[in-house]
Amino acid sequence: MTAVIHPATDQSPQSPASALVCRNCGASYPLGAQHACFECFGPLEIGYDAERLSRVTRESIAAGPHSIWRYAGLLPAGQNAATRVDSGTGMTPLIRADRLADRLGFTAPLWVKDDSANPTHSFKDRVVSVAITAARELGFTRIACASTGNLANSVAAHAARIGMDSIVFIPSDLEAAKITQTAVYGGKLVAIQGSYDDVNRLCSELAETDEFESTAFVNVNVRPYYAEGSKTLGYEVAEQLGWRLPQQVVAPMASGSLLTKVHKAFKELQSIGLVDPLDYRVYGAQSSGCSPIAVAFETGSDTVLPVKPTGIAKSLNIGNPADGPYALDAVRSTGGAMAHVNDDEIRDGIQLLAETTGVFAETAGGVTTAVLKRLIEAGSLDTSRETVIYNTGDGLKTQDAVSDRVGPTAVIAPTLKGMRAAGLL
Amino acid sequence: MTAVIHPATDQSPQSPASALVCRNCGASYPLGAQHACFECFGPLEIGYDAERLSRVTRESIAAGPHSIWRYAGLLPAGQNAATRVDSGTGMTPLIRADRLADRLGFTAPLWVKDDSANPTHSFKDRVVSVAITAARELGFTRIACASTGNLANSVAAHAARIGMDSIVFIPSDLEAAKITQTAVYGGKLVAIQGSYDDVNRLCSELAETDEFESTAFVNVNVRPYYAEGSKTLGYEVAEQLGWRLPQQVVAPMASGSLLTKVHKAFKELQSIGLVDPLDYRVYGAQSSGCSPIAVAFETGSDTVLPVKPTGIAKSLNIGNPADGPYALDAVRSTGGAMAHVNDDEIRDGIQLLAETTGVFAETAGGVTTAVLKRLIEAGSLDTSRETVIYNTGDGLKTQDAVSDRVGPTAVIAPTLKGMRAAGLL
Repeated sequence: MTAVIHPATDQSPQSPASALVCRNCGASYPLGAQHACFECFGPLEIGYDAERLSRVTRESIAAGPHSIWRYAGLLPAGQNAATRVDSGTGMTPLIRADRLADRLGFTAPLWVKDDSANPTHSFKDRVVSVAITAARELGFTRIACASTGNLANSVAAHAARIGMDSIVFIPSDLEAAKITQTAVYGGKLVAIQGSYDDVNRLCSELAETDEFESTAFVNVNVRPYYAEGSKTLGYEVAEQLGWRLPQQVVAPMASGSLLTKVHKAFKELQSIGLVDPLDYRVYGAQSSGCSPIAVAFETGSDTVLPVKPTGIAKSLNIGNPADGPYALDAVRSTGGAMAHVNDDEIRDGIQLLAETTGVFAETAGGVTTAVLKRLIEAGSLDTSRETVIYNTGDGLKTQDAVSDRVGPTAVIAPTLKGMRAAGLL
Repeated sequence: MTAVIHPATDQSPQSPASALVCRNCGASYPLGAQHACFECFGPLEIGYDAERLSRVTRESIAAGPHSIWRYAGLLPAGQNAATRVDSGTGMTPLIRADRLADRLGFTAPLWVKDDSANPTHSFKDRVVSVAITAARELGFTRIACASTGNLANSVAAHAARIGMDSIVFIPSDLEAAKITQTAVYGGKLVAIQGSYDDVNRLCSELAETDEFESTAFVNVNVRPYYAEGSKTLGYEVAEQLGWRLPQQVVAPMASGSLLTKVHKAFKELQSIGLVDPLDYRVYGAQSSGCSPIAVAFETGSDTVLPVKPTGIAKSLNIGNPADGPYALDAVRSTGGAMAHVNDDEIRDGIQLLAETTGVFAETAGGVTTAVLKRLIEAGSLDTSRETVIYNTGDGLKTQDAVSDRVGPTAVIAPTLKGMRAAGLL
């Protein structure tokens, strides 16, 4: 569990990553802890060597561990099994949701990819596993993040497991469960009197200070590595379907990154021949309390206008989403759509998913389920096409969303008489 | 997902189960929904056909699904993959806990089997998967249980997933999270003004009524099937260690069933030749607020005297533990020991496990971790022997145990000035 430090240029020979590429202007940079283009300030993402990607086969994946690291050949870090951070993240259940499908009128299969099964019960374990592995390879000695809660949980837990220092920044009004779950792991936890966007700005400033020179902010200075972790949500669905793509996917959007990475994963799998080509459609889900990307979609705009977030889906409350334009592009280019739902619909969505699948989702999963329903009603999503929806977090973290709606059927004395009085016998 | 109903006598030809056997007097009965001996009222458990068990190989297991059902050849139900209930339960991470080992002075490897990774985040998904599968095979149309919380979560979730009616009985003073998580799945939930032991008594009465004739109480009338699900906690540890047994295991005790089934699993694996023989030791952990089995161990008694439970480890609060005598026997016959810890030690245990492994356990996991420490201090557990501890549940369900102990390091304005004022820059 000792951190093995490599200089940034000492890439493992098996890594398929070849460069950092600007998503805006296409400028290319050497791999390292850089996240913005020196030319145009656009966001950087990992570029790959096509030949190295194409060495990955279904068989080489199946021979790997039962975690995201089975896809190491398609990820920018962690090719060395001895030094990567494998917390058992990934290969979460893909659940055939026949009862939900019936309720919504599907004639084709409907699936729920349930990422509440990850170690800290959200998809963030994927991006953190990749980011913390890359951070160690790049020589960082402390891990940090700006978070709406789930990322905080995951960064603090991963740091505790490997014994790395951590410092986590959150808005001070987060759900109590997410604060407790982060603090219990024992790293530094800084609550900020402000929104997530304020927290994110502060972290960007801190990343430039001398005091934080050895600190990897997973979603700031090592963001290109971090974001690639979400590709595994695409790879796993394809593998779990027997190496084919679903016709439609619905993903929640905060920064918009997850959705774009599922799209990227599907394109990669097609280009290296692991799945047959398919005209799949990507759909995006937001809460009406924070819907800058979905509103841009509705209004036909290319510009994502920042908003001040409100509403119960706090994990999605990013008012100035970094990947908004790219999410719009992924959805529009595939013929998908976006929608947003209000807090009551989110609560209904949590209950609908729980009652029909046994999956207790956090508010973000309620958003996705409610948006699925909304898209069907609007005629934007086709119930005769095979569909996967992503549940990205756990209902135990946002219990307040439903705790005043659900409860015991009856409270009785421990007797048969009590049962009869309650009409249960 | 349609329930396939078989009469009780129509066992799948591949099932290794051969009879219900009284653990007290050894009387044998045909397989079915019976849980107590007609001769002596002793508890029944599943007996197996040795020849059928011995057909199971490491290879046949590896060829199975990545869930408890890879061990179907060693379980009493679910041999038919098309009709069993596979919720993705099992194959939870076995975590090498080097940092915890260092803290406690281990010179041999220490592992945490983390069952919070199951779908409803406790080991109960194992026993419920087996029980609900058996219940359908036996022709029941409704599923029920008496629960201290985790079982309630799991029964309600499994029922929701397959569309089976459910009715769950709990003490009314359970943790809010466990009540909400059960109610959200939409089945009937009956809160009882009394202790778990009161709830359990009521369920035993109800199981005898005409109105509940078609209802399977997982831990009453189908308990022999149900209890076998815990064997998978033993099988998985052996397989994840590369098909060998650990020298010491520490398990929490409520009814005492889990511990006895891990012991049974280890014995089976040895007898059918899947692992080499080893003189392993079994250790039992209880909370001081409810320690009838551990107190019997301390006092050298064979009799487990019922107690009135108190304390924060509610999931372990069974004052009259059905399998107490068998747990005593498993621990004594292997040269292990038992101990109990108070509420503050339980809280310390939760924090120690979280800080060193990244696993946020519920109070039961705090009990196990604190008892591990206590047993070492008492000289009862050998730190030079390879050891596995079982974390059976999730910290998000019992947040109150630590929420007043942990929290943000600092609460600051979103500025560098705020960071400096807090001494963080």
